[in-house]
Amino acid sequence: MAGILQRTLKLRAALRHVSPHSTFFSTATVGHSPVDRRSPFLPTTSLQFGVCCRKLQAGADRPSPAAAPERLPFSRVTPEDVAFFRKILPGRTITDPDLLESNNVDWLKSVRGSSEVLLRPQTTEDVSQILKYCNSRNLAVNPQGGNTGLVGGSVPVYDEIILSTALMNNILTFDSISGILTCQAGCVLENLSLYLEERDYIMPLDLGAKGSCHIGGNVATNAGGLRLLRYGSLRGTVLGLEAVLADGQVLNCLAKLRKDNTGYDLKQLFIGSEGTLGVITAVSILCPRKPKSVNVVFLGCETFEQLLKTFQLCKGMLGEILSAYEFLDSECMRLLNTHLKLPNPISDCPFYVVIETSGSDPTHDGEKLHNFLDEAMTSSLVTDGTVATEDSKIKALWSMRERVTEALTHDGFTYKYDISLPVERIYQLVTDMREHLGDRAKSVVGYGHVGDGNLHLNVTSPTKDPALLAAIEPFVYEWTASCHGSISAEHGLGLKKRNYIYYSKPSQAVALMGNIKAMLDPKGILNPYKTLPDDLK
Amino acid sequence: MAGILQRTLKLRAALRHVSPHSTFFSTATVGHSPVDRRSPFLPTTSLQFGVCCRKLQAGADRPSPAAAPERLPFSRVTPEDVAFFRKILPGRTITDPDLLESNNVDWLKSVRGSSEVLLRPQTTEDVSQILKYCNSRNLAVNPQGGNTGLVGGSVPVYDEIILSTALMNNILTFDSISGILTCQAGCVLENLSLYLEERDYIMPLDLGAKGSCHIGGNVATNAGGLRLLRYGSLRGTVLGLEAVLADGQVLNCLAKLRKDNTGYDLKQLFIGSEGTLGVITAVSILCPRKPKSVNVVFLGCETFEQLLKTFQLCKGMLGEILSAYEFLDSECMRLLNTHLKLPNPISDCPFYVVIETSGSDPTHDGEKLHNFLDEAMTSSLVTDGTVATEDSKIKALWSMRERVTEALTHDGFTYKYDISLPVERIYQLVTDMREHLGDRAKSVVGYGHVGDGNLHLNVTSPTKDPALLAAIEPFVYEWTASCHGSISAEHGLGLKKRNYIYYSKPSQAVALMGNIKAMLDPKGILNPYKTLPDDLK
Repeated sequence: MAGILQRTLKLRAALRHVSPHSTFFSTATVGHSPVDRRSPFLPTTSLQFGVCCRKLQAGADRPSPAAAPERLPFSRVTPEDVAFFRKILPGRTITDPDLLESNNVDWLKSVRGSSEVLLRPQTTEDVSQILKYCNSRNLAVNPQGGNTGLVGGSVPVYDEIILSTALMNNILTFDSISGILTCQAGCVLENLSLYLEERDYIMPLDLGAKGSCHIGGNVATNAGGLRLLRYGSLRGTVLGLEAVLADGQVLNCLAKLRKDNTGYDLKQLFIGSEGTLGVITAVSILCPRKPKSVNVVFLGCETFEQLLKTFQLCKGMLGEILSAYEFLDSECMRLLNTHLKLPNPISDCPFYVVIETSGSDPTHDGEKLHNFLDEAMTSSLVTDGTVATEDSKIKALWSMRERVTEALTHDGFTYKYDISLPVERIYQLVTDMREHLGDRAKSVVGYGHVGDGNLHLNVTSPTKDPALLAAIEPFVYEWTASCHGSISAEHGLGLKKRNYIYYSKPSQAVALMGNIKAMLDPKGILNPYKTLPDDLK
Repeated sequence: MAGILQRTLKLRAALRHVSPHSTFFSTATVGHSPVDRRSPFLPTTSLQFGVCCRKLQAGADRPSPAAAPERLPFSRVTPEDVAFFRKILPGRTITDPDLLESNNVDWLKSVRGSSEVLLRPQTTEDVSQILKYCNSRNLAVNPQGGNTGLVGGSVPVYDEIILSTALMNNILTFDSISGILTCQAGCVLENLSLYLEERDYIMPLDLGAKGSCHIGGNVATNAGGLRLLRYGSLRGTVLGLEAVLADGQVLNCLAKLRKDNTGYDLKQLFIGSEGTLGVITAVSILCPRKPKSVNVVFLGCETFEQLLKTFQLCKGMLGEILSAYEFLDSECMRLLNTHLKLPNPISDCPFYVVIETSGSDPTHDGEKLHNFLDEAMTSSLVTDGTVATEDSKIKALWSMRERVTEALTHDGFTYKYDISLPVERIYQLVTDMREHLGDRAKSVVGYGHVGDGNLHLNVTSPTKDPALLAAIEPFVYEWTASCHGSISAEHGLGLKKRNYIYYSKPSQAVALMGNIKAMLDPKGILNPYKTLPDDLK
């Protein structure tokens, strides 16, 4: 308990550093933001955005630790800067506010920056030149992949220059013997998957945003997703990477080797550092063989305890072919029915499970699955279920899990939490939160990756509601810390969660992170206001 | 090629910093070393060792980059220091030279230190107190686990205080639902395996030294071993760790969570850093379920190309149950026959393969294996083979692979190389080396982890032979660098390989490693002379 208390105190210290300004705005304001669209180089423009941010925050009673701090004293972009960028990136230096709009706003429409310059490098050398220049001019930079992040890490907070990896989308090499792929950071995950599937391989990660997210962004956030249970985290499957440091120096750690113990593993610094330590420009990744047989089962359980017992049974009986064990609760099902008109494929139950098997022998896999289902039904662990072996039905069953996020966006303003806990505790948090909030919330839903102990807890409200937020936080974080859980399992900290880091990390660890940041990016130009708490300044 | 050239030049620069003194001595001298065994606290004793080292090195024509540099200006242990240690570690502060002997010499008997103090802490707090004191006194420390390392990383080079984890051998927690084990750093790998097997789990790593090596040492060297192909590297399976920094500060990153994206993943800094950045005191590790069925096959192939084709076939047909694909060549077999009297279980072939399957269904696994063997024999990829399903025969077949290292020690002085290469290139290095050395070497043998692209190349000679060494190096490193391989796949760099780092890492990366070292251990007291090249001083 001493540790938790210490973290709580440290957090309170952090809160005192939070400025009263915020770039947050509710979903309702998107598309109607009172943005001044005059020439982007009028020096007043950035201020205009700043004012706009303050207006949007006016409803809050007190500053949220998730709100943006004051703008740091970086230089502002001048016409000379733009001229320089135009010279090195002709036709790829974007200043048109309309074109910049989608890059300034995150996917959840919860954070809006006011960047006036979007750079679209094609090569590592381009990125190196950009950063060298920005570092010398003290210009802040927001590295951006597919902009699908959920914690406000992928958009500018103020007027940071957006460095997009969208045009860095070349596959560099693929070795069909080892399954090692190297590619530029801007390759879209789904495109890589399609490329590999034609060659009898798959990507070791898969996630709902696959159609937009970039592999560089996935690595920068250490994305988890749906296949982690089987293929492990990117810390194991990413074999190498190339990154450009804040001063423009290119760090080539793009090894294509499964094993390499020559010195410290520098690539790990960049995995999960959310663009704050360097810009990832290329990665090499170990890809598994494409399974010859895939089955998906959708099951219903009466209690979460039964769902966990089913997981244990499943690990024992499906063993090496188990590739996913995901869950959603009946509240998620209600949202899928209501907002997306997706019908429940089985009878109504309090809990639903999606189990995927991937194997090399359809007969063996079928037998294992049959035996498991037989045992699960006989022992009354599951109440109802359906199995899919064809692609279209597999997709349909998976969509019950994958589209929960989308259904939530139709339910109102969503407060999202991505919590890691000992697996036996994960649903207790949902139950406790529901009881704690009573009828203040519209919906309180839980879903996620049971196999990884990762709960996605979401609370909706008709509109943004500071009082509701005050009831959720710090309750959710204190609850998580009391179980030694993580307040961000896979989404990262970004802008929104940065000041909550002390709930999951001791102050010595956070201080060391600050030292690493200071060592690699002394001027702090890379993705400022993200990942690290404000009190480290 | 420009990169390789740059590295070569950098290496040559590094060589110029190598001192003419060395702590190396040949196997022949072990047990007869002319060490002065007077009171360990006479100030002359360390010098005495230094002289002894120089004598042993007298035969060399030029200093090897593997030789130790000059002793750095650390303080020398005084009686007051020993009194302090005795106070905090009563009965666990060892100064008897006889008791220190085995801690001063590495397993290969290739490096001898002259430490006069061995400390045996039991708790993290003990380690913290030791390091705080040593840091303030500028006393160098050699953290030591089971002392099974192969690159001179686990023993002192001069008079560093040995900090042994041998008494830190408690299992802290085991969660039978998630399979997450937490334990102190000094737990012996085999003891952990036995503990887990009783609970229906296994360790994700296995290696020949399992009876002696400590889990903390495994993590500190990022050990690979025999199960990496199936369960991945420690970078994925180690979920958390606790380390004590050079100044005594305890860094608690001992999370027991599969996913945690709250800030930079500091534990990765310590994995594979060979005790140079902190002393690992506890780890948490994700353990796989114990397989219900294990089979081992020993096969013979006519060519290495056929061996690789067999690997491809095997990956396709055995899929998710494949847990090891190891090889040895006919020269290894000759040494096993000659020195260990182990008979060849099949007919003579140029290449031998050990394949292991681990699965959850003996019938299914047996069928998959049968189908694979049928196809491999029919297509003439393999010439002969034998299958084991019983424990004793499985162990016997595995020993053909695991005991090659031991057989080599009986063949003479051994020059050991642990190389990572694109899998299709790994045996070419053995062939080229054999041709390059001609009859200057006694034996040139190749074995290792085909599945991981990891070759163990070993060259033996009747006695230590500087001329032979000069023929092997830098040839082996230049060859490896020309294929973008790693000069240390899993053994680490330690003392012996530190100056060769530039063959596998660009100078920017090495410089950054130096900055990390300087940040975490400004006085450089932790395992000096290891991992980083001399030219970083």
